[in-house]
Amino acid sequence: MKKCELLYEGKAKKVYATDDENYCIVDYKDDATAFNGQKKGTICGKGVVNNKMSNYLFKMLEEKGIKTHFVEELSDRETVVKKVEIVPLEVIVRNKAAGSLATRLGMEEGTPMKSTVLEFCYKNDDLGDPMVNEYHILAAGFATKEEIDQISAMSLKINEILKEFFLSVNIELIDFKLEFGRCADGIILADEISPDTCRFWDVNTHQKLDKDRFRRDLGGVEEAYAEVMKRIGL
Amino acid sequence: MKKCELLYEGKAKKVYATDDENYCIVDYKDDATAFNGQKKGTICGKGVVNNKMSNYLFKMLEEKGIKTHFVEELSDRETVVKKVEIVPLEVIVRNKAAGSLATRLGMEEGTPMKSTVLEFCYKNDDLGDPMVNEYHILAAGFATKEEIDQISAMSLKINEILKEFFLSVNIELIDFKLEFGRCADGIILADEISPDTCRFWDVNTHQKLDKDRFRRDLGGVEEAYAEVMKRIGL
Ligand SMILES: Nc1ncnc2c1ncn2[C@@H]1O[C@H](COP(=O)(O)OP(=O)(O)O)[C@@H](O)[C@H]1O
Ligand SMILES: Nc1ncnc2c1ncn2[C@@H]1O[C@H](COP(=O)(O)OP(=O)(O)O)[C@@H](O)[C@H]1O
Ligand SMILES: [Mg+2]
Ligand SMILES: [Mg+2]
Repeated sequence: MKKCELLYEGKAKKVYATDDENYCIVDYKDDATAFNGQKKGTICGKGVVNNKMSNYLFKMLEEKGIKTHFVEELSDRETVVKKVEIVPLEVIVRNKAAGSLATRLGMEEGTPMKSTVLEFCYKNDDLGDPMVNEYHILAAGFATKEEIDQISAMSLKINEILKEFFLSVNIELIDFKLEFGRCADGIILADEISPDTCRFWDVNTHQKLDKDRFRRDLGGVEEAYAEVMKRIGL
Repeated sequence: MKKCELLYEGKAKKVYATDDENYCIVDYKDDATAFNGQKKGTICGKGVVNNKMSNYLFKMLEEKGIKTHFVEELSDRETVVKKVEIVPLEVIVRNKAAGSLATRLGMEEGTPMKSTVLEFCYKNDDLGDPMVNEYHILAAGFATKEEIDQISAMSLKINEILKEFFLSVNIELIDFKLEFGRCADGIILADEISPDTCRFWDVNTHQKLDKDRFRRDLGGVEEAYAEVMKRIGL
Protein backbone atom coordinates (compact mmCIF):
# COMPACT_ATOMS: atom_id res chain seq x y z
CA MET A 1 0.00 0.00 0.00
CA LYS A 2 1.38 3.40 -1.01
CA LYS A 3 1.69 6.25 1.52
CA CYS A 4 0.12 9.32 -0.14
CA GLU A 5 -0.69 12.86 1.04
CA LEU A 6 -0.91 13.91 4.70
CA LEU A 7 -4.60 14.03 5.61
CA TYR A 8 -4.17 15.61 9.02
CA GLU A 9 -1.66 15.96 11.78
CA GLY A 10 -2.84 15.61 15.38
CA LYS A 11 -0.95 16.17 18.61
CA ALA A 12 0.51 12.62 18.65
CA LYS A 13 0.11 11.20 15.17
CA LYS A 14 0.08 12.02 11.48
CA VAL A 15 -2.55 10.41 9.30
CA TYR A 16 -1.75 9.80 5.62
CA ALA A 17 -3.99 8.79 2.74
CA THR A 18 -3.07 5.64 0.79
CA ASP A 19 -3.80 4.50 -2.75
CA ASP A 20 -6.86 2.70 -1.34
CA GLU A 21 -9.52 5.14 -0.08
CA ASN A 22 -10.64 2.67 2.62
CA TYR A 23 -7.29 2.71 4.40
CA CYS A 24 -4.90 5.23 5.82
CA ILE A 25 -1.46 5.07 7.39
CA VAL A 26 -0.92 6.37 10.91
CA ASP A 27 2.55 7.65 11.80
CA TYR A 28 3.24 7.97 15.54
CA LYS A 29 5.30 10.96 16.73
CA ASP A 30 7.37 11.51 19.89
CA ASP A 31 5.56 14.82 20.54
CA ALA A 32 3.86 14.95 23.92
CA THR A 33 1.21 17.46 24.94
CA ALA A 34 -0.92 17.84 28.05
CA PHE A 35 -3.69 20.06 29.38
CA ASN A 36 -5.20 20.56 25.94
CA GLY A 37 -1.89 21.48 24.33
CA GLN A 38 -0.79 24.06 26.94
CA LYS A 39 2.15 21.87 27.99
CA LYS A 40 4.42 20.62 25.20
CA GLY A 41 7.42 18.32 25.12
CA THR A 42 9.04 15.24 23.63
CA ILE A 43 9.11 11.72 24.96
CA CYS A 44 11.92 9.95 23.12
CA GLY A 45 10.79 6.69 21.55
CA LYS A 46 7.14 7.25 22.52
CA GLY A 47 5.97 6.92 18.90
CA VAL A 48 7.48 3.45 18.67
CA VAL A 49 6.01 2.35 22.01
CA ASN A 50 2.54 3.67 21.24
CA ASN A 51 2.50 2.17 17.75
CA LYS A 52 3.62 -1.29 18.82
CA MET A 53 1.57 -1.37 22.01
CA SER A 54 -1.61 -0.22 20.26
CA ASN A 55 -1.19 -2.81 17.55
CA TYR A 56 -0.52 -5.57 20.08
CA LEU A 57 -3.64 -4.64 22.08
CA PHE A 58 -5.83 -4.16 19.00
CA LYS A 59 -4.87 -7.67 17.81
CA MET A 60 -5.72 -9.06 21.24
CA LEU A 61 -9.08 -7.26 21.23
CA GLU A 62 -9.88 -8.52 17.70
CA GLU A 63 -9.31 -12.08 18.93
CA LYS A 64 -11.86 -11.43 21.67
CA GLY A 65 -14.48 -10.16 19.22
CA ILE A 66 -13.89 -6.39 19.25
CA LYS A 67 -13.76 -4.85 15.77
CA THR A 68 -10.83 -2.43 15.45
CA HIS A 69 -9.23 -0.26 12.75
CA PHE A 70 -5.94 -2.26 12.87
CA VAL A 71 -4.77 -3.72 9.56
CA GLU A 72 -0.98 -4.08 9.37
CA GLU A 73 2.14 -2.76 11.08
CA LEU A 74 4.45 -1.27 8.43
CA SER A 75 7.36 -0.12 10.57
CA ASP A 76 8.27 0.88 14.12
CA ARG A 77 6.10 3.97 13.83
CA GLU A 78 3.74 3.31 10.92
CA THR A 79 0.59 1.23 10.72
CA VAL A 80 -2.09 0.72 8.10
CA VAL A 81 -5.56 1.22 9.60
CA LYS A 82 -9.09 1.24 8.25
CA LYS A 83 -10.04 4.81 7.47
CA VAL A 84 -12.99 5.86 9.58
CA GLU A 85 -15.05 8.93 10.28
CA ILE A 86 -14.12 9.52 13.91
CA VAL A 87 -17.17 9.84 16.22
CA PRO A 88 -16.41 13.20 17.88
CA LEU A 89 -16.38 11.71 21.37
CA GLU A 90 -13.59 10.71 23.72
CA VAL A 91 -14.86 7.74 25.69
CA ILE A 92 -13.26 7.43 29.12
CA VAL A 93 -13.52 4.22 31.15
CA ARG A 94 -12.63 4.49 34.84
CA ASN A 95 -11.98 1.70 37.32
CA LYS A 96 -10.71 3.94 40.10
CA ALA A 97 -10.97 7.70 40.67
CA ALA A 98 -8.02 9.62 39.19
CA GLY A 99 -7.30 12.78 37.23
CA SER A 100 -10.27 14.96 36.37
CA LEU A 101 -12.75 12.59 38.04
CA ALA A 102 -10.92 12.78 41.36
CA THR A 103 -11.01 16.58 41.05
CA ARG A 104 -14.65 16.65 39.93
CA LEU A 105 -15.94 14.56 42.83
CA GLY A 106 -13.38 15.67 45.40
CA MET A 107 -12.02 12.14 45.80
CA GLU A 108 -8.49 11.02 46.60
CA GLU A 109 -6.78 9.48 43.53
CA GLY A 110 -7.02 5.71 43.65
CA THR A 111 -10.30 5.66 45.58
CA PRO A 112 -12.29 2.55 44.62
CA MET A 113 -15.81 3.21 43.34
CA LYS A 114 -19.05 1.21 43.62
CA SER A 115 -19.05 0.57 39.85
CA THR A 116 -17.19 1.23 36.60
CA VAL A 117 -17.56 4.78 35.28
CA LEU A 118 -17.99 5.68 31.61
CA GLU A 119 -17.64 9.30 30.50
CA PHE A 120 -18.04 10.98 27.15
CA CYS A 121 -16.23 14.15 26.19
CA TYR A 122 -16.97 16.12 23.06
CA LYS A 123 -13.72 15.93 21.05
CA ASN A 124 -13.14 19.63 20.44
CA ASP A 125 -9.85 21.26 21.40
CA ASP A 126 -11.26 24.80 21.16
CA LEU A 127 -13.85 23.96 23.83
CA GLY A 128 -11.35 21.95 25.93
CA ASP A 129 -12.98 18.56 25.25
CA PRO A 130 -15.96 19.25 27.57
CA MET A 131 -17.71 16.38 29.29
CA VAL A 132 -21.13 15.66 27.80
CA ASN A 133 -23.93 13.26 28.67
CA GLU A 134 -26.16 11.17 26.40
CA TYR A 135 -28.75 13.92 26.16
CA HIS A 136 -26.13 16.40 24.93
CA ILE A 137 -24.84 13.88 22.39
CA LEU A 138 -28.34 13.32 21.00
CA ALA A 139 -29.39 16.99 21.18
CA ALA A 140 -26.23 18.13 19.39
CA GLY A 141 -26.25 15.21 16.95
CA PHE A 142 -22.74 13.93 17.79
CA ALA A 143 -23.95 10.30 17.61
CA THR A 144 -27.21 8.34 17.48
CA LYS A 145 -28.71 6.44 20.41
CA GLU A 146 -27.75 3.15 18.71
CA GLU A 147 -24.15 4.33 18.32
CA ILE A 148 -23.96 5.44 21.97
CA ASP A 149 -25.28 2.06 23.13
CA GLN A 150 -22.85 0.15 20.90
CA ILE A 151 -19.89 2.33 21.91
CA SER A 152 -20.79 1.94 25.60
CA ALA A 153 -21.09 -1.84 25.39
CA MET A 154 -17.81 -2.14 23.43
CA SER A 155 -15.99 0.14 25.91
CA LEU A 156 -17.08 -1.89 28.92
CA LYS A 157 -16.08 -5.14 27.20
CA ILE A 158 -12.70 -3.66 26.22
CA ASN A 159 -12.25 -2.65 29.86
CA GLU A 160 -12.81 -6.22 31.07
CA ILE A 161 -10.31 -7.61 28.54
CA LEU A 162 -7.61 -4.98 29.18
CA LYS A 163 -8.03 -4.95 32.96
CA GLU A 164 -7.44 -8.70 33.10
CA PHE A 165 -4.54 -8.60 30.67
CA PHE A 166 -2.69 -5.78 32.43
CA LEU A 167 -3.26 -7.38 35.82
CA SER A 168 -1.44 -10.46 34.49
CA VAL A 169 1.67 -8.27 34.04
CA ASN A 170 1.25 -6.62 37.46
CA ILE A 171 -0.30 -3.41 36.17
CA GLU A 172 -3.56 -1.95 37.44
CA LEU A 173 -5.58 -0.29 34.69
CA ILE A 174 -6.94 2.80 36.49
CA ASP A 175 -8.63 4.46 33.49
CA PHE A 176 -8.25 4.94 29.74
CA LYS A 177 -9.60 6.90 26.76
CA LEU A 178 -10.97 5.39 23.55
CA GLU A 179 -12.06 6.78 20.19
CA PHE A 180 -14.44 5.03 17.83
CA GLY A 181 -15.07 5.48 14.13
CA ARG A 182 -17.75 4.86 11.55
CA CYS A 183 -16.90 2.77 8.48
CA ALA A 184 -18.63 0.36 6.10
CA ASP A 185 -18.53 -2.31 8.86
CA GLY A 186 -20.31 0.00 11.34
CA ILE A 187 -18.71 1.27 14.54
CA ILE A 188 -15.12 0.08 15.15
CA LEU A 189 -12.45 0.93 17.71
CA ALA A 190 -9.95 3.45 16.28
CA ASP A 191 -7.08 5.72 17.43
CA GLU A 192 -4.65 4.20 19.96
CA ILE A 193 -4.33 2.48 23.33
CA SER A 194 -1.03 3.42 24.94
CA PRO A 195 0.58 5.00 28.01
CA ASP A 196 -0.56 8.31 26.46
CA THR A 197 -4.21 7.27 26.75
CA CYS A 198 -4.25 5.00 29.82
CA ARG A 199 -3.42 5.31 33.50
CA PHE A 200 -1.24 2.33 34.45
CA TRP A 201 -0.24 1.82 38.08
CA ASP A 202 2.16 -0.85 39.29
CA VAL A 203 0.00 -3.24 41.31
CA ASN A 204 2.39 -3.40 44.27
CA THR A 205 4.15 -0.03 44.41
CA HIS A 206 1.34 2.05 42.79
CA GLN A 207 4.09 3.67 40.73
CA LYS A 208 2.69 5.50 37.71
CA LEU A 209 3.72 3.95 34.39
CA ASP A 210 2.02 6.38 32.02
CA LYS A 211 1.77 9.94 30.69
CA ASP A 212 1.03 11.31 34.18
CA ARG A 213 4.82 11.19 34.68
CA PHE A 214 5.05 13.81 31.88
CA ARG A 215 1.94 15.78 32.90
CA ARG A 216 3.10 16.07 36.51
CA ASP A 217 6.85 16.33 35.94
CA LEU A 218 7.55 13.12 37.86
CA GLY A 219 10.62 12.19 35.83
CA GLY A 220 11.41 8.74 34.45
CA VAL A 221 8.96 9.22 31.58
CA GLU A 222 10.81 7.21 28.90
CA GLU A 223 11.64 4.54 31.49
CA ALA A 224 7.97 4.14 32.38
CA TYR A 225 6.92 3.71 28.75
CA ALA A 226 9.76 1.17 28.28
CA GLU A 227 8.77 -0.70 31.46
CA VAL A 228 5.20 -1.26 30.24
CA MET A 229 6.57 -2.51 26.90
CA LYS A 230 8.90 -4.91 28.72
CA ARG A 231 6.10 -6.28 30.89
CA ILE A 232 3.92 -6.86 27.83
CA GLY A 233 6.85 -8.69 26.26
CA LEU A 234 7.38 -6.26 23.37
CA MET B 1 -48.01 23.78 63.06
CA LYS B 2 -45.36 25.37 65.26
CA LYS B 3 -42.18 26.87 63.78
CA CYS B 4 -39.28 25.46 65.83
CA GLU B 5 -35.48 25.64 65.51
CA LEU B 6 -33.62 26.63 62.35
CA LEU B 7 -32.42 23.40 60.70
CA TYR B 8 -30.26 25.04 58.02
CA GLU B 9 -29.91 28.25 56.13
CA GLY B 10 -29.18 28.10 52.41
CA LYS B 11 -28.40 30.88 49.95
CA ALA B 12 -32.09 31.66 49.28
CA LYS B 13 -34.13 30.06 52.05
CA LYS B 14 -34.16 29.14 55.71
CA VAL B 15 -35.52 25.76 56.70
CA TYR B 16 -37.11 25.38 60.16
CA ALA B 17 -38.18 22.29 62.06
CA THR B 18 -41.80 22.06 63.21
CA ASP B 19 -43.48 20.19 66.05
CA ASP B 20 -44.14 17.37 63.54
CA GLU B 21 -40.94 15.62 62.44
CA ASN B 22 -42.42 14.90 58.99
CA TYR B 23 -42.75 18.57 58.09
CA CYS B 24 -40.63 21.67 58.00
CA ILE B 25 -41.24 25.33 57.26
CA VAL B 26 -39.38 27.05 54.45
CA ASP B 27 -38.78 30.80 54.77
CA TYR B 28 -37.82 32.56 51.50
CA LYS B 29 -35.22 35.35 51.69
CA ASP B 30 -34.49 38.28 49.34
CA ASP B 31 -30.79 37.32 49.26
CA ALA B 32 -29.49 36.69 45.76
CA THR B 33 -26.27 34.92 44.89
CA ALA B 34 -24.71 33.84 41.60
CA PHE B 35 -21.65 31.97 40.35
CA ASN B 36 -21.59 29.68 43.36
CA GLY B 37 -21.86 32.53 45.86
CA GLN B 38 -19.10 34.73 44.39
CA LYS B 39 -21.65 37.42 43.48
CA LYS B 40 -23.99 38.57 46.24
CA GLY B 41 -26.90 40.99 46.37
CA THR B 42 -30.52 41.56 47.28
CA ILE B 43 -33.57 41.39 45.07
CA CYS B 44 -36.34 43.23 46.94
CA GLY B 45 -39.49 41.16 47.25
CA LYS B 46 -37.88 38.08 45.67
CA GLY B 47 -38.70 35.89 48.68
CA VAL B 48 -42.40 36.66 48.28
CA VAL B 49 -42.36 36.03 44.54
CA ASN B 50 -40.47 32.76 44.84
CA ASN B 51 -42.64 31.48 47.67
CA LYS B 52 -45.93 32.24 45.97
CA MET B 53 -44.82 31.18 42.50
CA SER B 54 -43.36 27.89 43.74
CA ASN B 55 -46.51 27.08 45.65
CA TYR B 56 -48.73 27.94 42.67
CA LEU B 57 -46.66 25.72 40.35
CA PHE B 58 -46.37 22.86 42.87
CA LYS B 59 -50.18 22.84 43.24
CA MET B 60 -50.53 22.76 39.45
CA LEU B 61 -48.03 19.89 39.19
CA GLU B 62 -49.82 17.94 41.98
CA GLU B 63 -53.05 18.19 39.97
CA LYS B 64 -51.23 16.67 37.01
CA GLY B 65 -49.94 13.74 39.05
CA ILE B 66 -46.50 14.95 40.20
CA LYS B 67 -45.87 14.37 43.92
CA THR B 68 -44.32 17.46 45.55
CA HIS B 69 -43.26 18.58 49.03
CA PHE B 70 -45.89 21.39 49.11
CA VAL B 71 -48.29 21.30 52.05
CA GLU B 72 -49.57 24.77 52.99
CA GLU B 73 -48.69 28.41 52.46
CA LEU B 74 -48.44 30.10 55.86
CA SER B 75 -47.57 33.66 54.86
CA ASP B 76 -46.04 35.69 52.01
CA ARG B 77 -42.67 34.09 52.65
CA GLU B 78 -43.37 30.93 54.65
CA THR B 79 -44.62 27.54 53.56
CA VAL B 80 -45.05 24.18 55.26
CA VAL B 81 -43.44 21.41 53.22
CA LYS B 82 -42.88 17.71 53.69
CA LYS B 83 -39.44 17.21 55.20
CA VAL B 84 -37.28 15.19 52.83
CA GLU B 85 -33.74 13.97 52.56
CA ILE B 86 -32.60 15.98 49.54
CA VAL B 87 -31.07 13.80 46.78
CA PRO B 88 -27.70 15.57 46.34
CA LEU B 89 -28.34 16.31 42.66
CA GLU B 90 -29.42 19.42 40.82
CA VAL B 91 -31.49 18.27 37.87
CA ILE B 92 -31.41 20.69 34.95
CA VAL B 93 -33.91 20.46 32.11
CA ARG B 94 -33.06 22.38 28.93
CA ASN B 95 -35.28 23.19 25.99
CA LYS B 96 -32.85 25.56 24.30
CA ALA B 97 -29.11 26.11 24.76
CA ALA B 98 -28.32 28.83 27.33
CA GLY B 99 -25.95 29.50 30.20
CA SER B 100 -23.37 26.82 30.94
CA LEU B 101 -24.66 24.53 28.16
CA ALA B 102 -24.17 27.23 25.52
CA THR B 103 -20.62 27.71 26.85
CA ARG B 104 -19.94 23.96 27.10
CA LEU B 105 -20.97 23.19 23.52
CA GLY B 106 -19.95 26.51 21.97
CA MET B 107 -23.52 27.32 20.95
CA GLU B 108 -25.23 30.69 20.68
CA GLU B 109 -27.79 31.18 23.50
CA GLY B 110 -31.27 30.35 22.28
CA THR B 111 -30.10 27.77 19.74
CA PRO B 112 -32.78 25.08 19.34
CA MET B 113 -31.60 21.50 19.91
CA LYS B 114 -32.66 18.19 18.38
CA SER B 115 -34.11 17.01 21.72
CA THR B 116 -34.65 17.99 25.35
CA VAL B 117 -31.51 17.88 27.49
CA LEU B 118 -31.38 16.60 31.06
CA GLU B 119 -28.29 17.25 33.18
CA PHE B 120 -27.34 16.22 36.70
CA CYS B 121 -24.99 18.22 38.88
CA TYR B 122 -23.65 16.98 42.19
CA LYS B 123 -25.06 19.46 44.73
CA ASN B 124 -21.82 20.47 46.47
CA ASP B 125 -20.87 24.14 46.75
CA ASP B 126 -17.24 23.35 47.63
CA LEU B 127 -16.82 21.50 44.33
CA GLY B 128 -18.83 24.10 42.37
CA ASP B 129 -21.81 21.78 41.70
CA PRO B 130 -19.93 19.74 39.07
CA MET B 131 -21.85 18.06 36.27
CA VAL B 132 -22.04 14.29 36.69
CA ASN B 133 -23.46 11.47 34.59
CA GLU B 134 -25.41 8.38 35.62
CA TYR B 135 -22.24 6.33 36.03
CA HIS B 136 -20.80 8.89 38.46
CA ILE B 137 -24.06 8.97 40.42
CA LEU B 138 -24.07 5.19 40.77
CA ALA B 139 -20.31 4.88 41.38
CA ALA B 140 -20.39 7.57 44.08
CA GLY B 141 -23.69 6.35 45.54
CA PHE B 142 -25.53 9.69 45.19
CA ALA B 143 -28.71 7.87 44.08
CA THR B 144 -29.83 4.42 42.92
CA LYS B 145 -30.62 3.48 39.31
CA GLU B 146 -34.33 3.36 40.22
CA GLU B 147 -34.15 6.85 41.72
CA ILE B 148 -32.33 8.24 38.66
CA ASP B 149 -34.96 6.73 36.35
CA GLN B 150 -37.82 8.08 38.44
CA ILE B 151 -36.26 11.54 38.76
CA SER B 152 -35.58 11.64 35.01
CA ALA B 153 -39.15 10.66 34.10
CA MET B 154 -40.63 13.15 36.58
CA SER B 155 -38.36 15.95 35.31
CA LEU B 156 -39.34 15.42 31.69
CA LYS B 157 -43.05 15.32 32.63
CA ILE B 158 -42.67 18.50 34.72
CA ASN B 159 -41.01 20.12 31.69
CA GLU B 160 -43.98 19.30 29.46
CA ILE B 161 -46.44 20.72 32.00
CA LEU B 162 -44.45 23.89 32.73
CA LYS B 163 -43.50 24.56 29.11
CA GLU B 164 -47.16 24.51 28.07
CA PHE B 165 -48.28 26.60 31.04
CA PHE B 166 -45.66 29.33 30.59
CA LEU B 167 -46.28 29.47 26.85
CA SER B 168 -49.93 30.27 27.65
CA VAL B 169 -48.69 33.46 29.38
CA ASN B 170 -46.28 34.31 26.56
CA ILE B 171 -43.16 33.02 28.29
CA GLU B 172 -40.71 30.55 26.77
CA LEU B 173 -39.28 28.16 29.34
CA ILE B 174 -35.63 27.91 28.22
CA ASP B 175 -34.33 25.77 31.09
CA PHE B 176 -34.79 25.16 34.82
CA LYS B 177 -33.30 23.39 37.83
CA LEU B 178 -35.12 20.94 40.10
CA GLU B 179 -34.28 19.21 43.38
CA PHE B 180 -35.89 16.00 44.57
CA GLY B 181 -36.14 14.45 48.00
CA ARG B 182 -36.66 11.09 49.64
CA CYS B 183 -39.52 10.67 52.12
CA ALA B 184 -41.91 7.95 53.27
CA ASP B 185 -43.85 8.36 49.97
CA GLY B 186 -40.70 7.77 47.90
CA ILE B 187 -39.17 10.41 45.62
CA ILE B 188 -41.00 13.75 45.55
CA LEU B 189 -40.26 17.14 44.00
CA ALA B 190 -38.79 19.54 46.59
CA ASP B 191 -37.08 22.94 46.79
CA GLU B 192 -38.53 25.70 44.55
CA ILE B 193 -39.50 26.65 41.00
CA SER B 194 -39.03 30.38 40.51
CA PRO B 195 -37.24 33.03 38.43
CA ASP B 196 -34.18 32.08 40.54
CA THR B 197 -34.22 28.55 39.17
CA CYS B 198 -35.67 28.98 35.65
CA ARG B 199 -34.75 30.85 32.49
CA PHE B 200 -37.88 32.65 31.27
CA TRP B 201 -37.80 34.53 27.95
CA ASP B 202 -40.64 36.67 26.64
CA VAL B 203 -41.93 34.78 23.60
CA ASN B 204 -41.99 37.85 21.35
CA THR B 205 -39.19 40.13 22.53
CA HIS B 206 -36.91 37.38 23.98
CA GLN B 207 -36.48 39.69 26.99
CA LYS B 208 -35.09 37.83 29.99
CA LEU B 209 -37.54 37.61 32.91
CA ASP B 210 -35.36 35.75 35.40
CA LYS B 211 -32.24 35.77 37.56
CA ASP B 212 -29.98 36.26 34.52
CA ARG B 213 -30.89 39.98 34.89
CA PHE B 214 -29.09 39.86 38.26
CA ARG B 215 -26.26 37.54 37.15
CA ARG B 216 -25.45 39.68 34.12
CA ASP B 217 -26.23 43.14 35.57
CA LEU B 218 -29.00 43.76 33.04
CA GLY B 219 -31.08 45.96 35.37
CA GLY B 220 -34.83 45.72 35.90
CA VAL B 221 -34.43 42.68 38.14
CA GLU B 222 -37.35 43.33 40.52
CA GLU B 223 -39.51 44.39 37.56
CA ALA B 224 -38.82 41.09 35.77
CA TYR B 225 -39.79 39.01 38.82
CA ALA B 226 -42.96 41.12 39.20
CA GLU B 227 -43.79 40.75 35.50
CA VAL B 228 -43.75 36.94 35.67
CA MET B 229 -46.01 37.09 38.77
CA LYS B 230 -48.43 39.39 36.92
CA ARG B 231 -48.58 37.12 33.88
CA ILE B 232 -49.27 34.08 36.08
CA GLY B 233 -52.07 36.11 37.69
CA LEU B 234 -50.53 36.23 41.20
N1 LIG C 1 -8.71 4.91 11.74
C1 LIG C 1 -8.70 6.25 11.69
N2 LIG C 1 -9.18 6.91 10.60
C2 LIG C 1 -9.17 8.26 10.56
N3 LIG C 1 -8.73 9.04 11.54
C3 LIG C 1 -8.24 8.45 12.66
C4 LIG C 1 -8.21 7.03 12.80
N4 LIG C 1 -7.69 6.73 14.03
C5 LIG C 1 -7.44 7.91 14.64
N5 LIG C 1 -7.75 8.96 13.83
C6 LIG C 1 -7.60 10.39 14.11
O1 LIG C 1 -6.28 10.78 13.84
C7 LIG C 1 -6.05 12.07 14.41
C8 LIG C 1 -4.62 12.20 14.85
O2 LIG C 1 -4.39 11.53 16.07
P1 LIG C 1 -3.79 12.32 17.32
O3 LIG C 1 -2.48 12.90 16.95
O4 LIG C 1 -3.89 11.40 18.50
O5 LIG C 1 -4.87 13.51 17.41
P2 LIG C 1 -5.33 14.43 18.64
O6 LIG C 1 -4.49 15.65 18.60
O7 LIG C 1 -6.79 14.70 18.33
O8 LIG C 1 -5.18 13.60 19.90
C9 LIG C 1 -7.12 12.22 15.49
O9 LIG C 1 -8.07 13.16 15.05
C10 LIG C 1 -7.76 10.83 15.54
O10 LIG C 1 -9.12 10.93 15.93
N1 LIG D 1 -38.74 19.68 51.52
C1 LIG D 1 -37.49 19.90 51.93
N2 LIG D 1 -37.00 19.26 53.02
C2 LIG D 1 -35.73 19.48 53.44
N3 LIG D 1 -34.87 20.32 52.84
C3 LIG D 1 -35.30 20.99 51.73
C4 LIG D 1 -36.61 20.82 51.23
N4 LIG D 1 -36.75 21.59 50.13
C5 LIG D 1 -35.56 22.22 49.94
N5 LIG D 1 -34.68 21.87 50.90
C6 LIG D 1 -33.29 22.32 51.07
O1 LIG D 1 -33.30 23.57 51.73
C7 LIG D 1 -32.00 24.16 51.62
C8 LIG D 1 -32.13 25.65 51.55
O2 LIG D 1 -32.53 26.10 50.28
P1 LIG D 1 -31.65 27.15 49.47
O3 LIG D 1 -31.50 28.41 50.25
O4 LIG D 1 -32.24 27.26 48.09
O5 LIG D 1 -30.25 26.38 49.46
P2 LIG D 1 -29.00 26.44 48.45
O6 LIG D 1 -28.07 27.45 49.02
O7 LIG D 1 -28.48 25.02 48.50
O8 LIG D 1 -29.54 26.80 47.08
C9 LIG D 1 -31.37 23.49 50.40
O9 LIG D 1 -30.34 22.63 50.87
C10 LIG D 1 -32.51 22.64 49.81
O10 LIG D 1 -32.01 21.49 49.17
MG1 LIG E 1 -4.94 11.64 20.28
MG1 LIG F 1 -31.36 26.79 46.25
